[in-house]
Amino acid sequence: MRDEGYWSLMLAAAADRDVLDPLVGARALFEIPSEMVYLDGNSLGPMPHASAFEVERAVRHEWAEGLISSWNDADWFALPTLYGDTLAPIIGADRGEVVVCDTTSINIYKTLHAALALRPDRRVIVAEGGSFPTDLYVIEGVMASRPDVSTRLEGRDGPDLLDLIDADVAVVLVNQVDYRSGRKRDLMAVTEKAHAAGALVIWDLCHSAGVMEVGLNAAGADLAVGCTYKYLNGGPGAPSFVFAAKRHLDGIRQPLSGWWGHAAPFRFDQDYAPDPGIRKFLCGTQGILSFRALKPALEMLLEYDLRDIRAKSVALTELFIRLVDETCTEYGVSLMSPRAAEERGSHVALRHPEAYASVQALIARGVVGDFRMPDVMRFGFAPLYIGFADVVRAARILEEVLAGEVWRDPVYRTRATVT
Amino acid sequence: MRDEGYWSLMLAAAADRDVLDPLVGARALFEIPSEMVYLDGNSLGPMPHASAFEVERAVRHEWAEGLISSWNDADWFALPTLYGDTLAPIIGADRGEVVVCDTTSINIYKTLHAALALRPDRRVIVAEGGSFPTDLYVIEGVMASRPDVSTRLEGRDGPDLLDLIDADVAVVLVNQVDYRSGRKRDLMAVTEKAHAAGALVIWDLCHSAGVMEVGLNAAGADLAVGCTYKYLNGGPGAPSFVFAAKRHLDGIRQPLSGWWGHAAPFRFDQDYAPDPGIRKFLCGTQGILSFRALKPALEMLLEYDLRDIRAKSVALTELFIRLVDETCTEYGVSLMSPRAAEERGSHVALRHPEAYASVQALIARGVVGDFRMPDVMRFGFAPLYIGFADVVRAARILEEVLAGEVWRDPVYRTRATVT
Repeated sequence: MRDEGYWSLMLAAAADRDVLDPLVGARALFEIPSEMVYLDGNSLGPMPHASAFEVERAVRHEWAEGLISSWNDADWFALPTLYGDTLAPIIGADRGEVVVCDTTSINIYKTLHAALALRPDRRVIVAEGGSFPTDLYVIEGVMASRPDVSTRLEGRDGPDLLDLIDADVAVVLVNQVDYRSGRKRDLMAVTEKAHAAGALVIWDLCHSAGVMEVGLNAAGADLAVGCTYKYLNGGPGAPSFVFAAKRHLDGIRQPLSGWWGHAAPFRFDQDYAPDPGIRKFLCGTQGILSFRALKPALEMLLEYDLRDIRAKSVALTELFIRLVDETCTEYGVSLMSPRAAEERGSHVALRHPEAYASVQALIARGVVGDFRMPDVMRFGFAPLYIGFADVVRAARILEEVLAGEVWRDPVYRTRATVT
Repeated sequence: MRDEGYWSLMLAAAADRDVLDPLVGARALFEIPSEMVYLDGNSLGPMPHASAFEVERAVRHEWAEGLISSWNDADWFALPTLYGDTLAPIIGADRGEVVVCDTTSINIYKTLHAALALRPDRRVIVAEGGSFPTDLYVIEGVMASRPDVSTRLEGRDGPDLLDLIDADVAVVLVNQVDYRSGRKRDLMAVTEKAHAAGALVIWDLCHSAGVMEVGLNAAGADLAVGCTYKYLNGGPGAPSFVFAAKRHLDGIRQPLSGWWGHAAPFRFDQDYAPDPGIRKFLCGTQGILSFRALKPALEMLLEYDLRDIRAKSVALTELFIRLVDETCTEYGVSLMSPRAAEERGSHVALRHPEAYASVQALIARGVVGDFRMPDVMRFGFAPLYIGFADVVRAARILEEVLAGEVWRDPVYRTRATVT
């Protein structure tokens, strides 16, 4: 184990960097339990103080007092596109190209159908075998009603996604950042490769939106989905979003054709006519209370420069990897995430045979990361509320847990059903 | 116009009935603006006081303090089935047959696919031409990937739904109570007729759950969906529910196969394996804040007897119809809802050429109903918070508006985009 001197030096250097950090003020905007180093914002972002007030206003003022009139007076019906327009610059999209609604799984279903409709002569979906599973499950759901469609999976049908893309491919469904390893894809290169083959790409931005310049339109992206409860801090189960490039909107049809996606929903026509714009991705009535926590979170993020956020994200993960290299490698930890910063998202994945119990021991010591099967510890570094000193504290406690084999304690070895 | 004596007499009689009402105490559990007669609970139920506290707890305690651990510690992952089991007795279902999730439109999509999968040799969907439009729009969405399927619509293909059901029909999608007229179907008779032809029925309970004994299992029902933000008072855009009879669960597949519907969602398997139970209707991560307002609302309803609720609902609508008959018929109003109580839900629909402006004038006078194209005024009588005296007040103000032709005032004639 490193001595006190090593850690004091590291902590002092980190504290200096925190002072100079242009984002240092953002932490005060969040409610985070004191003494906790919260490294699980890649799973559920913490609560912005303003979100609590916004939800309270939605409940006690808009619902309780405004009642049905709030559909107009509080713009409830327009929230999906209002928030979509707010979110658009965060992912490099334009107004009218993003709508907030439903869940990521459901939006993957919609965008897969949309892409297949835009490429009617093609029948192959390319995806990652190691994708967050819901992406693969939803592809199965689409194929249930499209038996003519088949898949090619990275890992199963070839080592590299890019080599699976050819003129038979309708659409590539790919995560910008892998949920386990934190590997980051080159959004522009994958998009270009797909377009060269005449295919479309659906980007799953769950682990990238909010921590980097996604740059959808700069890359000529087609479609994207993502969640808002990780780095966008929208609250537990906050609604998902869909992006569709304006040039595709005319040709898009998707089968979840509920009344909110109708061109004139309050005319109560018998026949469905999709909204000509991004609202065509809507289906049913949206959960207003779950929306409302998202608003202050998005507005807060817009106050900062995504280049600063990405630069700090890289610096935080670099520091953590360096500290783990220097202090933990001898205890059986290996780095799962890419070493090259440009290939890494905002979390660091480590492998250790006792990953599960180690994560529990860390949580008991105030360092909240999470575990993924079979042997992965994930640590998310969200630049808005994690500082350099937090990184040092987390690494030091990780060393303690591993060096002291704290994971042997039976209290940390009982598995919960969900994490 | 009726004189003061008439209305005083009516009000006194109504006040007497309110005193004897076994449900009279429930009103105090809701936040309803004073002086407002809220007759739009068939569109958005008012806020139970307890809901505000519950949402606040979810935000400030479970999210802000519990953070990611609340997925376990606050049972977030289990809410869809926990609340489903709470809701089950309200619609006459058993534990394990109801799940709360997503939106009604999306759940119609799932159940239509489920029904078609259960009847693979049949290709006809029967529905009401006058259905709430989203039901018809979603049928179109299903047909987009099932070109072999066709529809038969009551009103278009025959005057009576029952006569459209034969051995070609896979499923009948039907509203227990019509959203415009308030017409109530005989759930048992329609189910029996469909079953006799070998067809299934999906009941849309949006306008019946919470105001009557629905009695799904007593009628041998197959599938049902409904919303929780009307008579269940779950809050704006509160999640929908799905019912599937236990005997059907094994055979059901639905294409929105996201990770929450997986038999082992946290094993992160590559292949989809549906949960064997009602969770197979789940897809993606649910909006927890929108869920939480629903909990106290359901628990409150369970304190009352649905037979008392239905009896009062009938009495309230009877009284309103009688007062409208006696005071408003001469001003061009006609009753759209059925006169026979057993054929009527919990709202009363009136027709009047100036329905839109009349509704606006009523709202300005504290009587909140709503308007549906082209000439319909709807007045919902939710027995938990509407009393007999409210009915008299509403009828009296309606008479004022119509007799005085208050609807001529230009201020009431400007159309908003949404109601």
